[in-house]
Amino acid sequence: MRHLYRCPLRWSDMDAYGHVNNVVFLRYLEEARVDMLFHPDQDHAFARGTVVARHEIDYKRQLVHRHAPVDVEVWVTEVRAASFTLAYEVKDTGSGEEPDLVYARASTVMVPFDFALQRPRRLTEGERYFLQKYQDDEAAG
Amino acid sequence: MRHLYRCPLRWSDMDAYGHVNNVVFLRYLEEARVDMLFHPDQDHAFARGTVVARHEIDYKRQLVHRHAPVDVEVWVTEVRAASFTLAYEVKDTGSGEEPDLVYARASTVMVPFDFALQRPRRLTEGERYFLQKYQDDEAAG
Amino acid sequence: MRHLYRCPLRWSDMDAYGHVNNVVFLRYLEEARVDMLFHPDQDHAFARGTVVARHEIDYKRQLVHRHAPVDVEVWVTEVRAASFTLAYEVKDTGSGEEPDLVYARASTVMVPFDFALQRPRRLTEGERYFLQKYQDDEAAG
Amino acid sequence: MRHLYRCPLRWSDMDAYGHVNNVVFLRYLEEARVDMLFHPDQDHAFARGTVVARHEIDYKRQLVHRHAPVDVEVWVTEVRAASFTLAYEVKDTGSGEEPDLVYARASTVMVPFDFALQRPRRLTEGERYFLQKYQDDEAAG
Repeated sequence: MRHLYRCPLRWSDMDAYGHVNNVVFLRYLEEARVDMLFHPDQDHAFARGTVVARHEIDYKRQLVHRHAPVDVEVWVTEVRAASFTLAYEVKDTGSGEEPDLVYARASTVMVPFDFALQRPRRLTEGERYFLQKYQDDEAAG
Repeated sequence: MRHLYRCPLRWSDMDAYGHVNNVVFLRYLEEARVDMLFHPDQDHAFARGTVVARHEIDYKRQLVHRHAPVDVEVWVTEVRAASFTLAYEVKDTGSGEEPDLVYARASTVMVPFDFALQRPRRLTEGERYFLQKYQDDEAAG
Repeated sequence: MRHLYRCPLRWSDMDAYGHVNNVVFLRYLEEARVDMLFHPDQDHAFARGTVVARHEIDYKRQLVHRHAPVDVEVWVTEVRAASFTLAYEVKDTGSGEEPDLVYARASTVMVPFDFALQRPRRLTEGERYFLQKYQDDEAAG
Repeated sequence: MRHLYRCPLRWSDMDAYGHVNNVVFLRYLEEARVDMLFHPDQDHAFARGTVVARHEIDYKRQLVHRHAPVDVEVWVTEVRAASFTLAYEVKDTGSGEEPDLVYARASTVMVPFDFALQRPRRLTEGERYFLQKYQDDEAAG
């Protein structure tokens, strides 16, 4: 299963070149992640927080501000004892014979983190179960 | 030769966790790049612009807002016909026997881009010459 | 008539105090303005741009990130030859006997601007006609 | 006495119009305020936090990214039991016969706030004493 987040753009996401700035794509990934992992309708255990350990992102096409949101598809490519990896595609999803229009592909290594103790922690059973629902070994690539 | 950019922090760089947000580190890389490639004192040819093709970043340590700037060291790890790669360390540089305190290591693939024609272009001789001064094959990492 | 923009929040809109940062409210006003004045479904004349001449904003209540958007109501309080004034309420609109929950009230003086000539310009007939539809003399107060 | 903060610009402070976005000026005010009120070299009492109750800002001139910082002058125009008002000028300070080049003038009403109890509080003696050193009744005008 993949999580789909329909990410609203802001006019201010554009830089002086008149396109969405490369750094802002990482904000879109963050929003998609927050929507997937911390949505109040989810009955799971990411209440104690996580930190980002690594990002990789490839830019494929320029994106210009428009009123329609852009799709961010998120899924899980690896689950380990004390980390997990997410993959993403930022795109306009095609329909029928139209192919997807991909703006960026990315991945993030996340580390569960105990902010009270200020140290990494292991994934709980509930978190592991939650992540496995989104597991798909295909890297964004 | 490596370029050193002393990057000022902003209080708003912190997120609700009370540390500099992971996305903001990419802003610091951008500022270091702009300072290196586009500084008006440089007599070189990055006047026609570049776009970011890829980022990789590893987070090593949390950074909390303080009044002192953080060092961003930038150098060139590869120069090709129509792209080049930068490496970075975001750190508090040690002195004497004190080691560096590294917050993040990163790399960026840049593509020279002709915004008027909206397409990639080759590096000019002047750009190539400029980049070679900063070449150092050691990847950040 | 008032324009209603349902403004999506981002997790990163929160600062180290764990609430939406005061500066980010101005981003919400900007988004509401862009949605009202520059929406592609509008057949009017704000194609040549405007600049902000003045903002006033009063903060009434803290706002914390949640998945639901916040309402931004926008209307026009004054139309002059070469400027106009917008008023806004940022709020959770009440229903039935529940009153509105107001987070901020604000106003902005906008100046039509010719970016090619780099100077202020007068409102066109079409712009004036468009703005009058949203006119309501009640200041956000 | 007025507090002078030499505010560094970021390339990303510019929007698609190629000038520093109006909202970003409020970030500059925030940085100047943090530098004045919370600098670790200051022996005073703004440790328990404050919130912004109101901003007014007038834009006078466009500002474009450059490597040199912009001056933000801050002073106090009013001290009350449970609030105080700051005034600011964002400018390139002139020298000799050259006048200042003013980009924006602004004011902010601040309310001391107890984040633990989540309610406004009165100014302490130490805070009042600190603010009076910067008092100057001239509004930014």
